[in-house]
Amino acid sequence: MSAPEPNPNTRARLRAWIKLLTVNRIMQAELREKMRLEFGSTLPRFDVMAALDREPEGMRMSALSAALMVSNGNVTGIVDRLVAEGVVARMAVPGDRRAFIVRLTGAGQAEFAARAAIHAGWIDELLQGLSEEDADTLTTILRKVVSKQRGLQ
Amino acid sequence: MSAPEPNPNTRARLRAWIKLLTVNRIMQAELREKMRLEFGSTLPRFDVMAALDREPEGMRMSALSAALMVSNGNVTGIVDRLVAEGVVARMAVPGDRRAFIVRLTGAGQAEFAARAAIHAGWIDELLQGLSEEDADTLTTILRKVVSKQRGLQ
Repeated sequence: MSAPEPNPNTRARLRAWIKLLTVNRIMQAELREKMRLEFGSTLPRFDVMAALDREPEGMRMSALSAALMVSNGNVTGIVDRLVAEGVVARMAVPGDRRAFIVRLTGAGQAEFAARAAIHAGWIDELLQGLSEEDADTLTTILRKVVSKQRGLQ
Repeated sequence: MSAPEPNPNTRARLRAWIKLLTVNRIMQAELREKMRLEFGSTLPRFDVMAALDREPEGMRMSALSAALMVSNGNVTGIVDRLVAEGVVARMAVPGDRRAFIVRLTGAGQAEFAARAAIHAGWIDELLQGLSEEDADTLTTILRKVVSKQRGLQ
């Protein structure tokens, strides 16, 4: 007996996932290269600064890791370097000796704003194949996916 | 003077990209965890075997790296381990002393087929929020994006 034929929805989801992976890999490879050439920097560093930019009051390290969905250990190394460069400040949490809050410094906010604008231009160029209508359709569909996923977690 | 307002299409593309990144991060985190728990294995290892499974005649290491869009160095380490486990075979390329072709062994094909079926079930579960129609729409839109990106590269 052979394995049961997957239903059409399963096959449609798999096809969509493969395409999503492909787009993501192309984008990540291009963005990684642009970050290196234009900023002498890395994508994880940009992602950490982007997450902190959305929380001007700062974030606990654990919340930052959760937002980026990577391990605490990886984020710690990146944050250490950002602190050494003066673009991120690390503060103790009153009443919790082992916890830290990190936030962008003024210099960090300025650096991120400048780079985010250039980064937006790259995204725009890399997503040239996306009309405004298609972009909105994509956003609507993916929002439904994420909302279901958050329910599963 | 403030920076020029990005046009609506640029903003729509950025919104779509952020959602795409979010879905991808959630999926990768979930898949990484499932691979670890169910297979005692990693996502890059699965990705290498998936790429080789599509090319039964084998691939040059350079083509494998290109397909995965990661550096040759990373792939080499993974392939070394797969060869040691007997699921991948490495052969010299006649007439090119520095090149190698790698392919799945019979054991590798069997292992991958079993895991790919389970993996497909995970994708199906993680993409529960995607109706068949939405999945097909996603595939169609992302296909246009990729085709434009391949033109840019």
